[in-house]
Amino acid sequence: MTLAAGVLEGNRLALARLLTHIENDTADGRAALGELFPYTGRAHLVGVTGAPGTGKSSLVNQLARSIRNPGGGQAPQRVAVIAVDPSSPFTGGAILGDRVRMRDLAGDAGVFIRSMASRGSLGGLAATTSGMVQVLDAAGFEIILVETVGAGQAEVDIARLAHTTLVVEAPGLGDEIQAIKAGILEIADILVVNKADRPGVENTERALRNMLQLAHPVQHTFRHHGTLESVSSAMLEPVKEQPIWVPPVLRTVATEGSGMEQVWQAIIQHRQHLEASGEWQQRERSRLETELDGLLQATLVSRWRNQISAQEYQRVIARLVDRLISPWQAVQALLDGDQT
Amino acid sequence: MTLAAGVLEGNRLALARLLTHIENDTADGRAALGELFPYTGRAHLVGVTGAPGTGKSSLVNQLARSIRNPGGGQAPQRVAVIAVDPSSPFTGGAILGDRVRMRDLAGDAGVFIRSMASRGSLGGLAATTSGMVQVLDAAGFEIILVETVGAGQAEVDIARLAHTTLVVEAPGLGDEIQAIKAGILEIADILVVNKADRPGVENTERALRNMLQLAHPVQHTFRHHGTLESVSSAMLEPVKEQPIWVPPVLRTVATEGSGMEQVWQAIIQHRQHLEASGEWQQRERSRLETELDGLLQATLVSRWRNQISAQEYQRVIARLVDRLISPWQAVQALLDGDQT
Repeated sequence: MTLAAGVLEGNRLALARLLTHIENDTADGRAALGELFPYTGRAHLVGVTGAPGTGKSSLVNQLARSIRNPGGGQAPQRVAVIAVDPSSPFTGGAILGDRVRMRDLAGDAGVFIRSMASRGSLGGLAATTSGMVQVLDAAGFEIILVETVGAGQAEVDIARLAHTTLVVEAPGLGDEIQAIKAGILEIADILVVNKADRPGVENTERALRNMLQLAHPVQHTFRHHGTLESVSSAMLEPVKEQPIWVPPVLRTVATEGSGMEQVWQAIIQHRQHLEASGEWQQRERSRLETELDGLLQATLVSRWRNQISAQEYQRVIARLVDRLISPWQAVQALLDGDQT
Repeated sequence: MTLAAGVLEGNRLALARLLTHIENDTADGRAALGELFPYTGRAHLVGVTGAPGTGKSSLVNQLARSIRNPGGGQAPQRVAVIAVDPSSPFTGGAILGDRVRMRDLAGDAGVFIRSMASRGSLGGLAATTSGMVQVLDAAGFEIILVETVGAGQAEVDIARLAHTTLVVEAPGLGDEIQAIKAGILEIADILVVNKADRPGVENTERALRNMLQLAHPVQHTFRHHGTLESVSSAMLEPVKEQPIWVPPVLRTVATEGSGMEQVWQAIIQHRQHLEASGEWQQRERSRLETELDGLLQATLVSRWRNQISAQEYQRVIARLVDRLISPWQAVQALLDGDQT
């Protein structure tokens, strides 16, 4: 039986093995992705991003617990967690981290947790995450939480994969730290102020609402504060025709599990919004196009490399280092033959 | 007269205009880079990276001032600053920032400062920075300071361009924040604890030395603590034969200008080390190879895009979205023709 067939049958060992193939980008892994691809497209991908110190990992664990034990007679959904931590080059922490995480949710076949302590390139990290998401999607996990550190472009790229992006903040991390995340706020669908039992929670909320107003001026002014002051009537028209999502700001204390049910309900509402507005399909399409572009680029480069002679490449590099030709002239020499 | 010729003559307006061409990746900009490339390779590139709140920008300004007014009868060198701030999508802060910065050093023809508030892709950011560095190098600036925010892979990529990398810390930013920078410490040549008049400076220094020991175990144990405890005699041999650089940890209070002369002398010593050890040539070569690879990749993709029909591309995307073919199969269909 192939790994892909094992994954479709619900074999957890096959699933873990295939994810390792994906992480190492093996030929077997690629073949399995091809087999599994027709079974993908059902999972709701939720990106969870935030700086170290926001309690993001506890929040993800508690959220997984809420999804498995929802209130109000809702059915539990199957949930997978991918924890991406590109900022930790020294630790073998991924495996230890998994053990600590697993203890909490161990023995529940509806939960799967996987850490990645990748040192790979950025494109590589996003591509690996995308492959893992496809495998977990095909394996029947309905919610896939992708946890990232939220400090750079890598996280923004991974968040772009998601249908719904949660940005986690905590009181007392300082204005300077928040400034760095302005770019990430642009892609936030739900904002969570974790550690909300700490002093300064009001300040953090206020800072977030101010930044939201910069990021989504019309929607936020209109919906959130319920005032029309800064909204012209012309700008209001499209609001009436199409639903606009206003990122809610929610308080949680993940270590005590408080506020988690509200976060889970916000995620469900965001999915309903995406489906009603047609954005779900748009995000699917743009996600697949992005992935295709990355694969095309990698394939074009590796095919070209296999065809050029090492001698020719070294000869051009030597001329470049001696500054006899410029980098652009070197590209032309390599792609169009010797013209220098 | 071409922009490139103007730059070589020392025309500052031509320089500013050409940098704008580089930032927008125009055909004129590329042509000028080709003209200027033979005049490059002399400047010492110094990357300065650190989290928001470390006072990195003040440090860069004061460092520029020290380079222009060196102690001990040294000749002043011409210095250019490129400030890269990819984390600030909302501000038009680059231009305002330049004005504030310029005021301090205005009227000194040996100083040139340029900010980039780029939203471009990561490859784009590193490529743009590299092009700007080449222009400033050809324009005769002997020291080029490249200031980055230090929060992600983008900064690591830009730091890899540099001959010398300064990492700036400050007391009181918290252990969690420091953890995120472990990856950046690996590439640090000089560590600066700025705001050294604040409480906690000893803790910050201790944390840095501990992290350095993880990143450079042998060198640091041997050189810095002057103890041989954890160094086997076999490991010591290469130390005797080839000079090893041990990143110094320096204290500064940039707002008062204190400690700046020591930082400048450490930069000079690092250059001497690079030249004596042959690393200068190695870094030059690997920098040019990295740049060539990026340009090759971009060119291969854009040539391929110009040759494929939009119809064919859309047809394959549609089959992908309908999950009739996988992303890898889509790549094969696009590159090798219709086989599906």
